Amino acid sequence: MDKLSIGIIGAGRIGRLHAEHLTRNGRADIRTISDVYLTDELKEWAAGLGIPNVTDNYKDIIEDPDIDAVFICSSTNTHVPFITEAARAGKHIFCEKPISLDYRQTAAALEEVKSAGVVLQTGFNRRFDHNFKRVRELVKAGRIGEPHLIKITSRDPAPPNHEYIKVSGGLFMDMAIHDFDMARYLSGSEVTEVYAQGAVLVDPVIGELGDIDTAIISLKFANGALGVIDNSRKAVYGYDQRVEVFGSEGSVGVQNDHPNTAEISTANGVIRDNPKYFFLERYHDAYIEETRQFIDCILNGNPVPVDGNDAFQAEKIAYAAKVSLLEGRPVKLSEIEVGVG
Amino acid sequence: MDKLSIGIIGAGRIGRLHAEHLTRNGRADIRTISDVYLTDELKEWAAGLGIPNVTDNYKDIIEDPDIDAVFICSSTNTHVPFITEAARAGKHIFCEKPISLDYRQTAAALEEVKSAGVVLQTGFNRRFDHNFKRVRELVKAGRIGEPHLIKITSRDPAPPNHEYIKVSGGLFMDMAIHDFDMARYLSGSEVTEVYAQGAVLVDPVIGELGDIDTAIISLKFANGALGVIDNSRKAVYGYDQRVEVFGSEGSVGVQNDHPNTAEISTANGVIRDNPKYFFLERYHDAYIEETRQFIDCILNGNPVPVDGNDAFQAEKIAYAAKVSLLEGRPVKLSEIEVGVG
Amino acid sequence: MDKLSIGIIGAGRIGRLHAEHLTRNGRADIRTISDVYLTDELKEWAAGLGIPNVTDNYKDIIEDPDIDAVFICSSTNTHVPFITEAARAGKHIFCEKPISLDYRQTAAALEEVKSAGVVLQTGFNRRFDHNFKRVRELVKAGRIGEPHLIKITSRDPAPPNHEYIKVSGGLFMDMAIHDFDMARYLSGSEVTEVYAQGAVLVDPVIGELGDIDTAIISLKFANGALGVIDNSRKAVYGYDQRVEVFGSEGSVGVQNDHPNTAEISTANGVIRDNPKYFFLERYHDAYIEETRQFIDCILNGNPVPVDGNDAFQAEKIAYAAKVSLLEGRPVKLSEIEVGVG
Amino acid sequence: MDKLSIGIIGAGRIGRLHAEHLTRNGRADIRTISDVYLTDELKEWAAGLGIPNVTDNYKDIIEDPDIDAVFICSSTNTHVPFITEAARAGKHIFCEKPISLDYRQTAAALEEVKSAGVVLQTGFNRRFDHNFKRVRELVKAGRIGEPHLIKITSRDPAPPNHEYIKVSGGLFMDMAIHDFDMARYLSGSEVTEVYAQGAVLVDPVIGELGDIDTAIISLKFANGALGVIDNSRKAVYGYDQRVEVFGSEGSVGVQNDHPNTAEISTANGVIRDNPKYFFLERYHDAYIEETRQFIDCILNGNPVPVDGNDAFQAEKIAYAAKVSLLEGRPVKLSEIEVGVG
Repeated sequence: MDKLSIGIIGAGRIGRLHAEHLTRNGRADIRTISDVYLTDELKEWAAGLGIPNVTDNYKDIIEDPDIDAVFICSSTNTHVPFITEAARAGKHIFCEKPISLDYRQTAAALEEVKSAGVVLQTGFNRRFDHNFKRVRELVKAGRIGEPHLIKITSRDPAPPNHEYIKVSGGLFMDMAIHDFDMARYLSGSEVTEVYAQGAVLVDPVIGELGDIDTAIISLKFANGALGVIDNSRKAVYGYDQRVEVFGSEGSVGVQNDHPNTAEISTANGVIRDNPKYFFLERYHDAYIEETRQFIDCILNGNPVPVDGNDAFQAEKIAYAAKVSLLEGRPVKLSEIEVGVG
Repeated sequence: MDKLSIGIIGAGRIGRLHAEHLTRNGRADIRTISDVYLTDELKEWAAGLGIPNVTDNYKDIIEDPDIDAVFICSSTNTHVPFITEAARAGKHIFCEKPISLDYRQTAAALEEVKSAGVVLQTGFNRRFDHNFKRVRELVKAGRIGEPHLIKITSRDPAPPNHEYIKVSGGLFMDMAIHDFDMARYLSGSEVTEVYAQGAVLVDPVIGELGDIDTAIISLKFANGALGVIDNSRKAVYGYDQRVEVFGSEGSVGVQNDHPNTAEISTANGVIRDNPKYFFLERYHDAYIEETRQFIDCILNGNPVPVDGNDAFQAEKIAYAAKVSLLEGRPVKLSEIEVGVG
Repeated sequence: MDKLSIGIIGAGRIGRLHAEHLTRNGRADIRTISDVYLTDELKEWAAGLGIPNVTDNYKDIIEDPDIDAVFICSSTNTHVPFITEAARAGKHIFCEKPISLDYRQTAAALEEVKSAGVVLQTGFNRRFDHNFKRVRELVKAGRIGEPHLIKITSRDPAPPNHEYIKVSGGLFMDMAIHDFDMARYLSGSEVTEVYAQGAVLVDPVIGELGDIDTAIISLKFANGALGVIDNSRKAVYGYDQRVEVFGSEGSVGVQNDHPNTAEISTANGVIRDNPKYFFLERYHDAYIEETRQFIDCILNGNPVPVDGNDAFQAEKIAYAAKVSLLEGRPVKLSEIEVGVG
Repeated sequence: MDKLSIGIIGAGRIGRLHAEHLTRNGRADIRTISDVYLTDELKEWAAGLGIPNVTDNYKDIIEDPDIDAVFICSSTNTHVPFITEAARAGKHIFCEKPISLDYRQTAAALEEVKSAGVVLQTGFNRRFDHNFKRVRELVKAGRIGEPHLIKITSRDPAPPNHEYIKVSGGLFMDMAIHDFDMARYLSGSEVTEVYAQGAVLVDPVIGELGDIDTAIISLKFANGALGVIDNSRKAVYGYDQRVEVFGSEGSVGVQNDHPNTAEISTANGVIRDNPKYFFLERYHDAYIEETRQFIDCILNGNPVPVDGNDAFQAEKIAYAAKVSLLEGRPVKLSEIEVGVG
């Protein structure tokens, strides 16, 4: 196989993002894109990218024998059934995170993937970020010795709308899930305990919807390290994405990316432009790289960089964090019994 | 009164540090310094600074009617009796932190101070640091809106010796106590809950002595904010002292001080010298400023910048952290009943 | 016209770079690429990009009535004849810098462009860099008041090979030409005087070839500002591209771009990765943007962002710098009489 | 000799600065301070510092057999006669820069110093700055290989008053003189050629007084390196003092010192406080260190860190810069014949 023939399920923001990157990748052909809302605008957009088929029926993708791989970019509640169907149809799968809001269902879907022997990659795009990747490289290379502390700051520029919050699974599942993955990725170790503090400080409606908008999440890792994640749904200065790994021989940290390096010195102080605004700007290259590696996986047989277990583990941590918040106590991951078979 | 006549109890490292700064302060005269170990070296050092009296009996200070104020720089277990005696003798008091390892004894000593109507200042020198002071100013001025997250990194370059650890009260009391004070200072709010994670990752002997060397401490504040402190007894790159306060309208953070701003670019990367090595270098100016303000307090009737209650509150938090670590659960400060009368 | 039909003359590094970017631009079609060395490798590369025609005769481009615009990426000595022929054939022109080593010939070519009424854009890619563009914006917006000092640091990671130096026109023409353009761009003013100091400190062979490898070039501007450029052909830490504009109300400067923001703190100091290695990495996005704007110019009638006069002026400054170096004296631009008609 | 007995001639800003530092140095006693304006305020200030004698006659210092060393902090035009008299009286001398506005007179004064066999140190305080000292150390240690480019930025926050400019000798002599010294210090080489561009962009009255307020000064060094200094009399954001030395194996640069490291991120960008305002703040520690080393020189026989020749050479460069500016041409230092005997 020279080129991968791809179907994309879901033409929302993230589906279109992947589509645009895939059309610029010389080793991929998008054959079909499906969305339940089949608008003229969508057809036009698809035509502009040279995508030959647009449909409102995802089965046109699953059942197309000429399609090798499926990108599942539809709403979270569809991920498990679509993974199951795609796996049974022998398609390789790229699925956005989280796979589901219930880690047990995720486990079941991963069983299907395993049986089918197809590749599944999860959309933890931050692993492909130039900054975080460099931290991981340095940690892995032993440059900071044994990791002792893992610190993650992850703040959005503005909260999502209330409709989204109702169905998203809450801050731990829709936002911190990336940070749980990052904690495992950077430390190279599994999380064994979670203690989550939450607060509603940004928008009281978020609280009324049963969610929080501010959190500090303490972690323990199997290798003995400790960790902490801090989250906010609203950083007025923009997307705040920093990490630090401190160890026996040193520490490595990354700062935010800025759109430029200009510094203005005036009578009122030294000023620079805010960090890149949000994930589309900050993780632009990471999105491209994750699809490139997915294609590589399949065409060249490279190992999957972020597999189903990575999704499953992050979901379990999110679940434990929720329990911790509700019960006001640290929760051991071992309290949660189901594993991936 | 034009000049303050001062006696210093304890001529160890910190007692001598204060002595040296006080001799350069035009509004203070050190009349006597006492230490249980009255060596020739000490006498010589005192003579060099022009201190007229050196004694091995602290009572020579307490009972001297010509002495206005006492610096208590002796070992922690002597603080409460010396405060009590000094207060009863009508001396103003500067006492190193912590006042005691038992917040109830601290409360009792503070009652004595209150009855005597003397000034007591606690040695939380970091409040006088140029960086942290600036953060507090900006938070107080509302520049970041309402505080949502308070983050404190506090790591020593090397652990103290084992003898010290045996009597110090442990990491929470001998080291994090400064951070507990900083948490209250930066947030302008009281801590209401503590959850402490601890680990022995630096030196197993520290564990055998019943202490930890690595910690992540989650905090809740009365104003709704959340906080986190991370500690290590050994940062190989030097003293690491950073804070960040994130709020509804922005965030303010400080980085470490470095001995110079030189950056060397070579084929192997861009390199700069490590942060200032330890507290003597980093807080040099803060130590001078805290004694200057203590003198100001008494001579000019300024309010005490760090009073006995500040010591008491930090000790209560340290105690709660210890309980949290031992019992593996978040501990509310309200569980600890005794207050300062 | 919806899409621009493009021919590229010269399939060396820079010609291929433009080709790759143009194939990803939805508003351009590369119809033909020509190179005097028509290898199988070139044919394969062109096929991979979907370029239908490859030829060793540039006239196949000039004479093709279906081609709207020509990218001239061949060696400098061919620029003037190719511009002339392309202009006469009514093609719009994107020409790499410099247009020629003799500003009088450049002037003549620009007369042809003017007569033909076609668009000509010059390859001063740095004007499209995110950092420098931001500096220009801030200067133009008056954020630093009136410009007083313009400082440009421009150092290559390694010298070009000796063959290149023989024909390049020397450091002022092959390297500093970009800085001369930047000086005009950032200041918004013309250079009126140049004093160039040069030295051979990197490689004696460069001196034997009649060139220099290190330079400091002082400038005066028509608006009264002063400027300085420093150049080296060999910065062992990588490409060094920084500018600063200082004015009556403040100053704005940019630092280098780095591949990531990771900082490692170890016992040996704080280290970060070197700046992006060379122009391909550093100006990647700027190259894309300059071709995008060229297409916009023609399809939408936008003004040319870097026109022929910009090339001409930079070449005149380079010439004056050479005279200054040879004669050891400041040279006024007014000594050089020819202008663009 | 245990302690140095010192007389200070001139009780202006810089004389008082030295006095305050000397009173805190355990190895110095100020015996007398003289000033032509003998006010009550001066007497009070001196009493506060414990200086026993205040006089309006500098001869009370020169002729006092109990005084070992003289600090000459009076106006520039008195330096040469006071050095001469002090040297003849066998006093060691600390003299503020410049020694005179005429390098030939400086040479004559230095002859007197030589004959008398006394120590003379010049007030080039910046050599004792933590940043610049570190650059020099790194250059000297070969960390950047052979120096190729020396760059110095030196801008004052505000111009001096017009009266000062009338007698100061102009920008090159009153301000850039420090930078000329820094150029020699950092490069470890002598300046051989100067080309100075000047402009009046800050205040037209400065131009009417025959001076400039903005300059770019190109330098050549005996070791083949090139250099450039940029000056402005008015940087609205504060004192701007940066240097960079670029060499065959790397580069080392320093940024400004700031009063704190706080960075505020708001919706309007990331802001930090301006650099330390002016020389009193920025070079505070350097002033202390230069007097400490002067005392060391005499008491311990250490070599003089900045001697008379350093003053002489910087004055010659300033003179050459003035000639260059007036004649609009590069000036070789060899054109200036007189040397120090």
